[in-house]
Amino acid sequence: MEKPTFQPVGTPVMELDTPALVLDIEALNFNLEKMSSIIGQSDVGIRSHVSTFGCPAIAHLYADKVPGNSGIAVNTIGECEVFANAGFSDILITNQIITRSKILRLCSFAANHSVQVLVDNPQNVRDLSDLAVNSGVIIGCKVEIDVGLGRGGLSDPGEITELANSILALDNLELTGMTANFLPLHVSSVSTKPSTESLLEIFTDTISQVTDIDAKYRFLSVRSNEGFQDLLSASEISEIQIDTVPLMDQKSLKMNLQFKPSVKVLCSVLSHPIPTRVVVDAGHKTTGPDIGLPVVDGLSGIEAVKFSAEHGALEVGDNATQILAPNDKVWLIPFDLSLCTNQFDYFRVVRNNVLHGLWPISSRGSFG
Amino acid sequence: MEKPTFQPVGTPVMELDTPALVLDIEALNFNLEKMSSIIGQSDVGIRSHVSTFGCPAIAHLYADKVPGNSGIAVNTIGECEVFANAGFSDILITNQIITRSKILRLCSFAANHSVQVLVDNPQNVRDLSDLAVNSGVIIGCKVEIDVGLGRGGLSDPGEITELANSILALDNLELTGMTANFLPLHVSSVSTKPSTESLLEIFTDTISQVTDIDAKYRFLSVRSNEGFQDLLSASEISEIQIDTVPLMDQKSLKMNLQFKPSVKVLCSVLSHPIPTRVVVDAGHKTTGPDIGLPVVDGLSGIEAVKFSAEHGALEVGDNATQILAPNDKVWLIPFDLSLCTNQFDYFRVVRNNVLHGLWPISSRGSFG
Repeated sequence: MEKPTFQPVGTPVMELDTPALVLDIEALNFNLEKMSSIIGQSDVGIRSHVSTFGCPAIAHLYADKVPGNSGIAVNTIGECEVFANAGFSDILITNQIITRSKILRLCSFAANHSVQVLVDNPQNVRDLSDLAVNSGVIIGCKVEIDVGLGRGGLSDPGEITELANSILALDNLELTGMTANFLPLHVSSVSTKPSTESLLEIFTDTISQVTDIDAKYRFLSVRSNEGFQDLLSASEISEIQIDTVPLMDQKSLKMNLQFKPSVKVLCSVLSHPIPTRVVVDAGHKTTGPDIGLPVVDGLSGIEAVKFSAEHGALEVGDNATQILAPNDKVWLIPFDLSLCTNQFDYFRVVRNNVLHGLWPISSRGSFG
Repeated sequence: MEKPTFQPVGTPVMELDTPALVLDIEALNFNLEKMSSIIGQSDVGIRSHVSTFGCPAIAHLYADKVPGNSGIAVNTIGECEVFANAGFSDILITNQIITRSKILRLCSFAANHSVQVLVDNPQNVRDLSDLAVNSGVIIGCKVEIDVGLGRGGLSDPGEITELANSILALDNLELTGMTANFLPLHVSSVSTKPSTESLLEIFTDTISQVTDIDAKYRFLSVRSNEGFQDLLSASEISEIQIDTVPLMDQKSLKMNLQFKPSVKVLCSVLSHPIPTRVVVDAGHKTTGPDIGLPVVDGLSGIEAVKFSAEHGALEVGDNATQILAPNDKVWLIPFDLSLCTNQFDYFRVVRNNVLHGLWPISSRGSFG
């Protein structure tokens, strides 16, 4: 695992060992307040999707400060266990739980916590019921709807109705509504993605055709990031699962200009192989640039252009050595927060430009 | 950190919890033998670059089985410390060590081990000397040469000569030769890269112009992967730093057809959102597809096409449910080993199709 050089609280931020994943607690608080004022009096539930940052300390701040808190969401049973240990008890796993060993872990978990999973397959629903009955626990099920992104779920109203009715008929399962994930799958870069409005239209149109189900089971929960503001006013939506917003990344900032980037990678200049280029000590392994390159913060005209596992190359125009000398520090805003934080085990938390603490990313790597 | 569900040794591989990073020990041994027979009687030194896999158990096998073993190479002082604890004492850090705190760690390390770093900057060389003198240690320095990839190093023969002479003149530094990294920087996909031959020509041509340095300091060490076979016969080259070859990934397999992929990600089918698509439980966070997509192993006509953080989408032609049912297992060969292993804390080591052990990726996340 990551072996941080534990520097003392109070260390000036520019003296942190690099590369460092730095969380600016003031920017985080600013974003949480901004988010709260946007949500305002809306009666939609806000479920914090914590797998993006994996840090219970942040999840607690999020739950305390943002109105409408309706529990947390995670991606895996492993993350579920980590966050339950950290004090969270109402957890939605935004995934199908398929294998027998994982269903058994889910049942153990359900003995002491409220847990829901996504379902889109009749056999899986029967397996969940069988093992829940054996364990004497109740498992909440949300039917996943595919809104055309092809990332999981059903789209045929007949199949949706049939699956929902089978959940109602089976023992030890509870139908807790329908859900859709509005985040697109990527190849190596972010493709043009459908608008939140168009995805919402597909979702509500599909649900409107599911007529043979009592209205109380049409509790609609949507996973979204930058589009969350468009969902607040949608009367059909009961709950939004939001992840990146309070922390922000370059991908989400582009559509939410009133927020601040609270998480950045601090790196050091290592070399100047050619006059127009500066090489820094942050590469693929720290910035996670799978679907987009990080952006240099606070230095205009400088662009992150290429990466190796441990190095990043910045294009700086001429006279690179005049602009950034070896050992100078550079701030990078990650393009996608989730892929960046998954590389680290700790946030270096900074307040007033000094180290305030090291917050563990406790669920990093909890894939299974 | 990763919380593996520790399944007992002897568990059949297809019953491992997914997603799992699986190392096939027989394929690894096959590759090590193949590599040994290729190297044969060559008197070039082979330095195992361990940061790609981060696992001391593999590094020990590599050192034991491959001829010409001349120590290991790492990327960071953090990795250096991890591998020294695991019993390695001759370590080349293939990076500039710039910040004062890291130079101090380097000096502590040099008190008990043979360590070399790369240098390309006069001020850095003076800093290294000053702190090495204070600590009473010797630090080996290799001058890094830029062979046109713009990833670090000097290219002007005059500057190279000057830097080499300043190392010779300064106290407590030892000039141990010249080095070049032949691995290209990437944007989001692997660009057309120069051939090993052309990089070698630039390297040896540059060195031939460095005339004012004793020949004994022209010990040339090259970092390479799939091109290592072309370097074995280059009389100018004294040492090759090889990383991926004994384990292999899709990127290196394409150019080394006689090797086997020894590391794969085992994943499970979760869903069939559309008839032509299967969704599996391995996404960006497990396969690390930054510079290329993983390849499905053993199933023809099936292609990994898109990823989210936790999901992978495979295109399977029609009748996806007939071909792969929920809970069926799929093997993915990672495109780039380094970016995949950095996501995990353990290799699930498999022999004869059963779990043989869990080998820690001890230097994962040792960025600094």
